[in-house]
Amino acid sequence: MVAVTVIGPGSIGSAVVAVAVRGGADVQVLGRTEAKARAAAEPLGASFGAVGDTLTGDIVVLAVPFDAVEEILGQYHAAFRGRVLVDVSNPVDFATFDGLIVPAYSSAAQAMQSTVPEARVLKAFNTNFAATLHSGVIADQPTAVLVAGDDADAKEALLGVVRTAGLRGVDAGSLKRARELEAIGFLQLTLGMREEISWTGGLGLVA
Amino acid sequence: MVAVTVIGPGSIGSAVVAVAVRGGADVQVLGRTEAKARAAAEPLGASFGAVGDTLTGDIVVLAVPFDAVEEILGQYHAAFRGRVLVDVSNPVDFATFDGLIVPAYSSAAQAMQSTVPEARVLKAFNTNFAATLHSGVIADQPTAVLVAGDDADAKEALLGVVRTAGLRGVDAGSLKRARELEAIGFLQLTLGMREEISWTGGLGLVA
Repeated sequence: MVAVTVIGPGSIGSAVVAVAVRGGADVQVLGRTEAKARAAAEPLGASFGAVGDTLTGDIVVLAVPFDAVEEILGQYHAAFRGRVLVDVSNPVDFATFDGLIVPAYSSAAQAMQSTVPEARVLKAFNTNFAATLHSGVIADQPTAVLVAGDDADAKEALLGVVRTAGLRGVDAGSLKRARELEAIGFLQLTLGMREEISWTGGLGLVA
Repeated sequence: MVAVTVIGPGSIGSAVVAVAVRGGADVQVLGRTEAKARAAAEPLGASFGAVGDTLTGDIVVLAVPFDAVEEILGQYHAAFRGRVLVDVSNPVDFATFDGLIVPAYSSAAQAMQSTVPEARVLKAFNTNFAATLHSGVIADQPTAVLVAGDDADAKEALLGVVRTAGLRGVDAGSLKRARELEAIGFLQLTLGMREEISWTGGLGLVA
């Protein structure tokens, strides 16, 4: 059985919890407070706790706001060794909404891998609106979760959970492709903000 | 009546010709030779000629291979003044298939705008596989054509043709967003090459 820890039970974190539970994983939810984690975890039968607790997941999904990522990486640095670390962030410059705050030649996920070289970093879920993870569909198509990463086993483990949950897991290539996934996530957010698309829709992937 | 010139009757150029004709435009097709342009134009009732001929389109779609763009920009530099110039390119590094050959902080479309400041440059069609422009659908959804550009009138003119053709025209924002559109086009090509998606599918946009 795959064990998944989701740190950050916000909108996208809670959606990933739902996917992981449907995907048959043993799920732990950690929040800034245990109460916040409980709200996301308890209805789905997941365990919960506060940031700082021991990680039970082999796959750890970091779904805290982007400006809180560094602190978590510092706090759990040793614990992340060998674990699969999933970056779901869209590092948008919210002051301008006209670009990302990571260097153009890189990505948040690649930066995370540099900070925690002992972890096996994946980029995933950042191209999905939360509602489409909960529902599992975009229009009549299964929601596609694009996963980029350099470690094939790590990627297969996450794709397995996603597929068991009934979503379409797509291997999006190496961790370098996180740059393109972050561009997609950003563009999709701008289209949502400008009401060109709804938050229950977005970019779907059609076979 | 909108007049559209398509330079480069290859796979994507021919698909844009079909969209423009369905979109009610007066269409001219220019090829390296008149014979090549004729094959794409004649069955659809478009006029045709060879590169070097006078442009009849107010909207000019540049659909030549990326390494031939510079020559065309030089050749038609004066003629492009005031015209809408549509960049459909995906400037992929085909030697590595691991990135783009334009600077990470820019895009082919922004570079084109710098080269021809008197033209009104748009990025469009680069996120569409040719088959989905011909068919007009991805699965059961109308094919979405994402259009980025700084000139609102230029964008509306192209979106009008696209929508009249029965496709979904989406305003993707300023020309800076060409960077994200090129990331999407590139990622989609890598997924196609790796057979994660078919050439009749790809990324769809769901309302």
